[in-house]
Amino acid sequence: MNFSSKLLEQAVAEFGRLPGVGQKTALRLVLHLLKQPEADVLRFTDVFSRLKRDIRHCSVCHNISDNDVCEVCASLKRDKGLICVVEDTRDVMAIENTNQYHGVYHVLGGLISPMDGVGPSDLQVDSLVKRLEAVGAREVILALSATMEGDTTIFYLYKKIKDFGVQISTIARGIAFGGELEYVDEVTLGRSIVTRVPYERSIAS
Amino acid sequence: MNFSSKLLEQAVAEFGRLPGVGQKTALRLVLHLLKQPEADVLRFTDVFSRLKRDIRHCSVCHNISDNDVCEVCASLKRDKGLICVVEDTRDVMAIENTNQYHGVYHVLGGLISPMDGVGPSDLQVDSLVKRLEAVGAREVILALSATMEGDTTIFYLYKKIKDFGVQISTIARGIAFGGELEYVDEVTLGRSIVTRVPYERSIAS
Repeated sequence: MNFSSKLLEQAVAEFGRLPGVGQKTALRLVLHLLKQPEADVLRFTDVFSRLKRDIRHCSVCHNISDNDVCEVCASLKRDKGLICVVEDTRDVMAIENTNQYHGVYHVLGGLISPMDGVGPSDLQVDSLVKRLEAVGAREVILALSATMEGDTTIFYLYKKIKDFGVQISTIARGIAFGGELEYVDEVTLGRSIVTRVPYERSIAS
Repeated sequence: MNFSSKLLEQAVAEFGRLPGVGQKTALRLVLHLLKQPEADVLRFTDVFSRLKRDIRHCSVCHNISDNDVCEVCASLKRDKGLICVVEDTRDVMAIENTNQYHGVYHVLGGLISPMDGVGPSDLQVDSLVKRLEAVGAREVILALSATMEGDTTIFYLYKKIKDFGVQISTIARGIAFGGELEYVDEVTLGRSIVTRVPYERSIAS
């Protein structure tokens, strides 16, 4: 694209670097910002310059937080003996929205992915081990995505923590509620038959 | 959504205000930015804070420009007697990309749209009239979108400038190159039959 202004071109390039934003979308967003009052644009830039500088991660669970210890870890109502290991803050938000979980979290910050150059040392694995050594726990739930990277990470974590005497579990996999059998993939359907549960247990909670 | 950090929530809200960006996308973009090195985030915010402050519009054609007069208006190779009126800088870029136009532009900055509260006084209409009074022109091409707002604006501009003795034209409408007849809407197809051109003329350029 031939831009009429270098500054415009730079702004479009910056937006275009974001995932899922192409050049045309980036230009549309920049022109939208240009039409806004100056105060709005200042607020936009101000938030992002503070973002990287001021954002903190909970020293216990590594979730994004405004304080040294996040609300979940600081809450007296949460079961500290139950630790749910997740990939990032989005998963914490998704699980919190279910209102079904009352334990605490451990945010890895990613999944093991050799293709993307992400190894165990890039994730909060050591701090999970240290946390189990120092505080201990009754159960660790590995709530990671049902992908190749998720399964790899689960296997790695399992080997790391299996000798701590904690119960290790993964979240249930099967057919989603509302899912129609004919549209479910073969692997999921096959597994869900192999790992079937007694009817009394399936309606227990 | 329940955010674990107020700052994160603000950043997501700012991204979510952009057109076509929902909360989930905004969160994904913010988490992406958080993972980038600090220098990259600083460059991101720096460009946008300069954007609103430093961006200028060409004093002749009102296109976005780094200088008081844009490259097109300053070029000696461009035909100053031919003025193409467009909605915004994206249209200038689109027409420049065709390499078929060697005149100059006049950027309105929008289209007349009573529904959105945009009237002629919000657009660069008066400056077009002044430009025709002061410098004059041989021909004015009204290259606006083939929408209700575009047609309204074309009609308004036509009434404003018809007494200046310049030729007023609009860009050709019809079936796009590569377009298949069966998929073309009835209005376009009907008009393209009524406004058919002699074959010799259609292959002239």
